[in-house]
Amino acid sequence: MAAAFFTLPGRWRLVKTLRVVQNLPAVKLHLSGVAMIATEAEFEKAKNKLKTLKNDPGNEVKLRIYALFKQATEGPCNSPKPSMLDFVNKAKWDAWNSLGKIPKMYEEIMKALEQAAKDDSTLTVMTGSGDYYCSGNDLSNFTDIGPEGVEQKSKNSGELLKRYVSHYIDFPKPLIGVINGPAVGVAVTILGLFDAVYATDKATFHAPFSQLGQSPEGCSSYTFPKIMGTSKANEILLFNKKLTAAQACELGLVTEVFPDSTFQKEVWKKLHAYAKLPKNSLAFSKQLIRGVEKEKLHAVNAQECERLVERWLSEECMNAIMGFFEKKSKL
Amino acid sequence: MAAAFFTLPGRWRLVKTLRVVQNLPAVKLHLSGVAMIATEAEFEKAKNKLKTLKNDPGNEVKLRIYALFKQATEGPCNSPKPSMLDFVNKAKWDAWNSLGKIPKMYEEIMKALEQAAKDDSTLTVMTGSGDYYCSGNDLSNFTDIGPEGVEQKSKNSGELLKRYVSHYIDFPKPLIGVINGPAVGVAVTILGLFDAVYATDKATFHAPFSQLGQSPEGCSSYTFPKIMGTSKANEILLFNKKLTAAQACELGLVTEVFPDSTFQKEVWKKLHAYAKLPKNSLAFSKQLIRGVEKEKLHAVNAQECERLVERWLSEECMNAIMGFFEKKSKL
Amino acid sequence: MAAAFFTLPGRWRLVKTLRVVQNLPAVKLHLSGVAMIATEAEFEKAKNKLKTLKNDPGNEVKLRIYALFKQATEGPCNSPKPSMLDFVNKAKWDAWNSLGKIPKMYEEIMKALEQAAKDDSTLTVMTGSGDYYCSGNDLSNFTDIGPEGVEQKSKNSGELLKRYVSHYIDFPKPLIGVINGPAVGVAVTILGLFDAVYATDKATFHAPFSQLGQSPEGCSSYTFPKIMGTSKANEILLFNKKLTAAQACELGLVTEVFPDSTFQKEVWKKLHAYAKLPKNSLAFSKQLIRGVEKEKLHAVNAQECERLVERWLSEECMNAIMGFFEKKSKL
Repeated sequence: MAAAFFTLPGRWRLVKTLRVVQNLPAVKLHLSGVAMIATEAEFEKAKNKLKTLKNDPGNEVKLRIYALFKQATEGPCNSPKPSMLDFVNKAKWDAWNSLGKIPKMYEEIMKALEQAAKDDSTLTVMTGSGDYYCSGNDLSNFTDIGPEGVEQKSKNSGELLKRYVSHYIDFPKPLIGVINGPAVGVAVTILGLFDAVYATDKATFHAPFSQLGQSPEGCSSYTFPKIMGTSKANEILLFNKKLTAAQACELGLVTEVFPDSTFQKEVWKKLHAYAKLPKNSLAFSKQLIRGVEKEKLHAVNAQECERLVERWLSEECMNAIMGFFEKKSKL
Repeated sequence: MAAAFFTLPGRWRLVKTLRVVQNLPAVKLHLSGVAMIATEAEFEKAKNKLKTLKNDPGNEVKLRIYALFKQATEGPCNSPKPSMLDFVNKAKWDAWNSLGKIPKMYEEIMKALEQAAKDDSTLTVMTGSGDYYCSGNDLSNFTDIGPEGVEQKSKNSGELLKRYVSHYIDFPKPLIGVINGPAVGVAVTILGLFDAVYATDKATFHAPFSQLGQSPEGCSSYTFPKIMGTSKANEILLFNKKLTAAQACELGLVTEVFPDSTFQKEVWKKLHAYAKLPKNSLAFSKQLIRGVEKEKLHAVNAQECERLVERWLSEECMNAIMGFFEKKSKL
Repeated sequence: MAAAFFTLPGRWRLVKTLRVVQNLPAVKLHLSGVAMIATEAEFEKAKNKLKTLKNDPGNEVKLRIYALFKQATEGPCNSPKPSMLDFVNKAKWDAWNSLGKIPKMYEEIMKALEQAAKDDSTLTVMTGSGDYYCSGNDLSNFTDIGPEGVEQKSKNSGELLKRYVSHYIDFPKPLIGVINGPAVGVAVTILGLFDAVYATDKATFHAPFSQLGQSPEGCSSYTFPKIMGTSKANEILLFNKKLTAAQACELGLVTEVFPDSTFQKEVWKKLHAYAKLPKNSLAFSKQLIRGVEKEKLHAVNAQECERLVERWLSEECMNAIMGFFEKKSKL
């Protein structure tokens, strides 16, 4: 999801922040961060360059262009950066420069979840650092389109996403989300697999799939209608509605909302108290609740990922993304 | 459901209004109307006539009497109308006069849904014309009891209802309800199969099954408890509670409520914006969400219809309807 | 659940009150009561005695000690009561004294439900007498640990609970809860199997499983997430949150809340009106709604009970209970 755009008008920003900490006796936190920023000026230049192309450059190039503007990172790069005018080369450079960054973040989180599942902690907490919770997981970014081509890349991304979501489905302990700011994309949809979600009143929840020609993931096509009914869920899943924290709480996606000024203090006090509860009792109770629908969740996850692989390769998805760049249309 | 009675005290009215329009580029609307009205005076006469009968006339006659008062239509009729005093004949005449009207409406809607499923529209919208959304689908009216008898008629009605509801279960695009006024019976229960429902604050939602000796349809025995929990759903499905638009929205049956004065303007603006979203993305997303429970929905539909066939033939149903005429009892 | 402690600080009290009445034409009520009280003074003595033990007395003795303080009844006893100082003997005496009391209550309710299922009543209502609805069903009390030992006792309790909950799953008529005061433990969790729940604004809902090293029952691991979503359900099922009546109503566990001053009058007026509705129609409608998930509910019930049998025998459960006595810790 490139949707961090929506929350930061006038500036492009992809902030991916998930922490893993281990400084609490019985509580385990996740910390892992990647930050990518591209300025609006950079985008404007590229967009103009794009217009000078005589023929439709094809999906492969479009994808790389898309990656260019989304993936341009702030960090240093060892190979010399091509000039902005050397358009396609720059796209390639950027694509390869950011190669594996997103998959790496997924792999890191999966590894952290595997460890947390085994260690002696009672609860596992996921939270963001800084002002944002998570901008979404850009599986659609195709940043590493190599010799295998777009189709294989799309398949690989689908496989990665499926494995990633499976880690949440199978996680054996209470998993708690501490939503410290805006959340976008899969960071929102996967909340239906959390056991409790606490949010600051500054948090927002946005999953603009259809606007980008895509489709729901994170088991949200099952969990959201279950939590809030189809009528409410579809405004989020089909029609790109962005929820405030209060709305998300009323709909049952969020457990409780706190004023931003006391959020961290109140939430961590609560979590430390929870962490003192009988550990096995919590784990077994969570597993009872999850067990009822685990098989269904895995099936849903597989179908969602299969659909996304098709979506990522569709003209509609590509055009939606390009159109988004052109128009910055707001629904 | 004869339940339009409840919304129009002092007058009998069955207003069945579902529009199909095609004047929007990407939005497809449904318009199809049938209006049936019987005055209270007509009913009073018939009720008195009924009292003069020495013996219980039996279900077959009762059903025709019921049809008489419910089905007397405003429209012209080609065969000469029997005098009000020729009671049983008039019942037959009225029954045959309205023969197929209800089934015809069902067939029309099904055909419209089939077309909408295939054409290039993005969304399909159902709404009512005039002050009412829909008075419910009087499958229980038995208006066309011919030589095949009551049992066969009941079976046929069950089959028709099952096919009708199946069209909603299988509908492949976002289906949106624009509830412009009171909704009764299956027009309410089937809302659980819609993808979004927008209502004026003048809308009400009423499904008085048990009051008429019947049972839930439109998959509501599954969708309503899923949307709002059994405790809330049963007040509607078992205990005949009529909901305001605000209550229906709070329970998750309705997506959003608008003031009646700006309802049409606000809703259509929203729908036109939705209609510009990537078409396949919306359809595939809806199908993902529906796919999770499609098999279950068809099974529920079959069981609901089977139960209704039994209900329509039950003494309890007949007596509830006759009792309703006698007492106009309010719960 | 020993959770009545929470609602009555400074005093130990287990008030188990479920009425069965039959004085209404079409409404059937349940009345059956058992009251057990142990004073704080008695507990203090016993706790001190416990501290004088040199070695860990083992689970078998701990369980009996636990039973001692929980099960000491107010009623008369035919065998001579051992002195408070004769600690282990007193535990045994008390255990045997209260032998079968809890199972007897379960058996009584099951018998009442079986009768109500067959008789000509339209509705079945469960309510409490006095100020409390129900303190929970202390299946964990192990009051009758005889020669068969703790393991067999735990198994038997699991079997009893499974049979008990099955009676609610299979109950064929509308089952309505009239919650006249605080409800604790299985009396709360089983509410997800009721068809409607009306509560006084003085009612509270508390199911502190994990605090006592246990796990959810009454199918709540399935019904609660279905009714209110996992995020909300887990605060109750995992983190011991006590709900007010208003909160329970907002979450969909309770159908409607009434001011305590008019509660009884308003509720019974409503129930008498409901009782006049067509009986078979109500029963068949309820069965349609339940039928969709009956198989799943039985599977969930079996798994919950299997887990509880393990929990009751776990060190964690025993320590949680002993710890509760020691610390009176509040979450």
